[in-house]
Amino acid sequence: MYSYNYLFDLTRKIFSGMGCSDEHSTTIAEILLKAEIRNISSHGMLRISDYFQLWKEGRISATPDIRVVHESLSTAVVDGDKAFGMIPAKFSMELAIDKARHAGTGWVATRNSNHFGIAGYYAMMALEHDMIGICVTNANPTVAPTFSVEKMLGTNPVAMAVPALNQPPFVADFATTPIPRGKVAIAEKKGEQLATGLIQDSEGVTTTDPSALRRGGAILPLGSDYIHGSHKGYCMGSIVDILSGVVSGANFGPFVPPGVAYLPRKDRETGLGTGHFFGAMKIDAFMPAEEFRARMDEWIVSLRAAKPAAGHEKVLIPGDPEREWEEKIMKEGINVVPKVIEDMKLVTTELGIEFNPGADM
Amino acid sequence: MYSYNYLFDLTRKIFSGMGCSDEHSTTIAEILLKAEIRNISSHGMLRISDYFQLWKEGRISATPDIRVVHESLSTAVVDGDKAFGMIPAKFSMELAIDKARHAGTGWVATRNSNHFGIAGYYAMMALEHDMIGICVTNANPTVAPTFSVEKMLGTNPVAMAVPALNQPPFVADFATTPIPRGKVAIAEKKGEQLATGLIQDSEGVTTTDPSALRRGGAILPLGSDYIHGSHKGYCMGSIVDILSGVVSGANFGPFVPPGVAYLPRKDRETGLGTGHFFGAMKIDAFMPAEEFRARMDEWIVSLRAAKPAAGHEKVLIPGDPEREWEEKIMKEGINVVPKVIEDMKLVTTELGIEFNPGADM
Repeated sequence: MYSYNYLFDLTRKIFSGMGCSDEHSTTIAEILLKAEIRNISSHGMLRISDYFQLWKEGRISATPDIRVVHESLSTAVVDGDKAFGMIPAKFSMELAIDKARHAGTGWVATRNSNHFGIAGYYAMMALEHDMIGICVTNANPTVAPTFSVEKMLGTNPVAMAVPALNQPPFVADFATTPIPRGKVAIAEKKGEQLATGLIQDSEGVTTTDPSALRRGGAILPLGSDYIHGSHKGYCMGSIVDILSGVVSGANFGPFVPPGVAYLPRKDRETGLGTGHFFGAMKIDAFMPAEEFRARMDEWIVSLRAAKPAAGHEKVLIPGDPEREWEEKIMKEGINVVPKVIEDMKLVTTELGIEFNPGADM
Repeated sequence: MYSYNYLFDLTRKIFSGMGCSDEHSTTIAEILLKAEIRNISSHGMLRISDYFQLWKEGRISATPDIRVVHESLSTAVVDGDKAFGMIPAKFSMELAIDKARHAGTGWVATRNSNHFGIAGYYAMMALEHDMIGICVTNANPTVAPTFSVEKMLGTNPVAMAVPALNQPPFVADFATTPIPRGKVAIAEKKGEQLATGLIQDSEGVTTTDPSALRRGGAILPLGSDYIHGSHKGYCMGSIVDILSGVVSGANFGPFVPPGVAYLPRKDRETGLGTGHFFGAMKIDAFMPAEEFRARMDEWIVSLRAAKPAAGHEKVLIPGDPEREWEEKIMKEGINVVPKVIEDMKLVTTELGIEFNPGADM
């Protein structure tokens, strides 16, 4: 187990070692660690090695010139200049919040970015401003549209955070697929089978063999198959891709660049880098914030009181599980799997940073 | 088979007969007929009898005073004064478009409304203004959250329309459930079984028996069960409900009033009527519209070129099936099932409107 502070300092040193400013290193560390404590380790320390490789190959810039390239009263387009995704993403969400302060809402489309960690982080930035926060991003293609065998969309997550009064905030943060790519890879490494309805093989037939994804297969859209509404999951993934990629001027659909260095660059580009889309809605642009917060409490209390099915203790509100994990992990420490520690050791050695793997708590 | 014009005129007469203005009757007829020609007959003529009963009971007003009750540069809240939903919905989307013209985007939350037909109609209103249109609505509770046996959310649809250049527009319009309520009722009437993973019984166990929905069961969220991501469908349905109900000041969650008169009013209200949420984003608030339209063509062409799975001819773009139906049905006529014709005959008789059921083409 590692303490939050230990991994936070180490992560800051690693990104400083790549040439990031103190401010940027701190932002990246904060967002990667936020994923760890929310128990979304697929978006935490695991990514450091991938980011490092992409930086070494010049596919990510540690000293970006982030610019607003287009704007209106309630909108903007931001060019991330190939930065680590967290940097333009945080900049863009701050801009959306600032626009919302003046125009009621703010909407920022971001291009020329990279993998940015967990979408929920940016949505939650709105909460302390009495705003609803929204964030979506496209990602490299792993998902086949309904009736297709070709990977055309990413797992394209959606996040929305809504403030309440005495209740904790509503925080939804979910991929538009039944399973994230990382869980397929883990099942394969463990030699486990998947449930049907999560991925398909190269012929478009659902399979329980996780290795099928590497061998020409694809992740299914949320809904799994047509009869269970996979075309609706395909619609959701498409909406995310259009807002993130088409509106921003980034790559879209099958052209979104990979977030890992072992996959080659795309032959063709339809824009600049990866794209995101951010929204902030000031609550008192709709009703007094205090009134809204009390209504949101009522929403949460009503849904939480829903009668649970046999074998279940309670109905969860989006954000409940991650909040419980945050409390637990901040107290008990962060567990990083040996393979990730090994990869981090390689990175720190190459950057000349001191790191003696071993639990610090 | 009935012609579009015949049913359009008849529908206008019916709503005029209830006391709607000419303009309002025309709007309602246009939106109900749009559902018919897009092959979404669950939102077409079928609804006339329900609307009539609700109007007779005073639960819908034919002469509403629709008002803007709160606004900012890019937002507004509209009170629909218990109107037929189409009237405040069209008013609200027009207001969103107007806001977007000036502020780049417009967002309107609507309360004290009723069932409004197909969400896609309002999203598509943005297209001719070089805008992206968005529309969501809550609905009376039929859906149980993951791990629950209680109906807490509606089928809460999402619609988004995006203009292209030479390609037809992208139009997504989908419920956040694997199956709409209407299809469950039809299966029961036909004595057919459903697939598993669409509805659950009163114990929360998925069942193929469509009558379970009437006997304490519930529709499942998109994703069907936890392992296939039903918590993500539950998140989507929740987002729609919060935007439509909590933000607008309408009823939300289990308190949304029914859209049919045979279901009683709710014992408790958390706001006014049913709620909707509308968005319009001016494309040139992000990039020149011509450039965007060309990018959208490229998105559509790329996705359409995805290799189809065995047994399938092509991959569909959201909006393709409904557009093909529009062409076919406008040419061949509208088929209305006998039971719906019977119900319409009862309504016209009561209103003293001439209607001699029988094909007019």
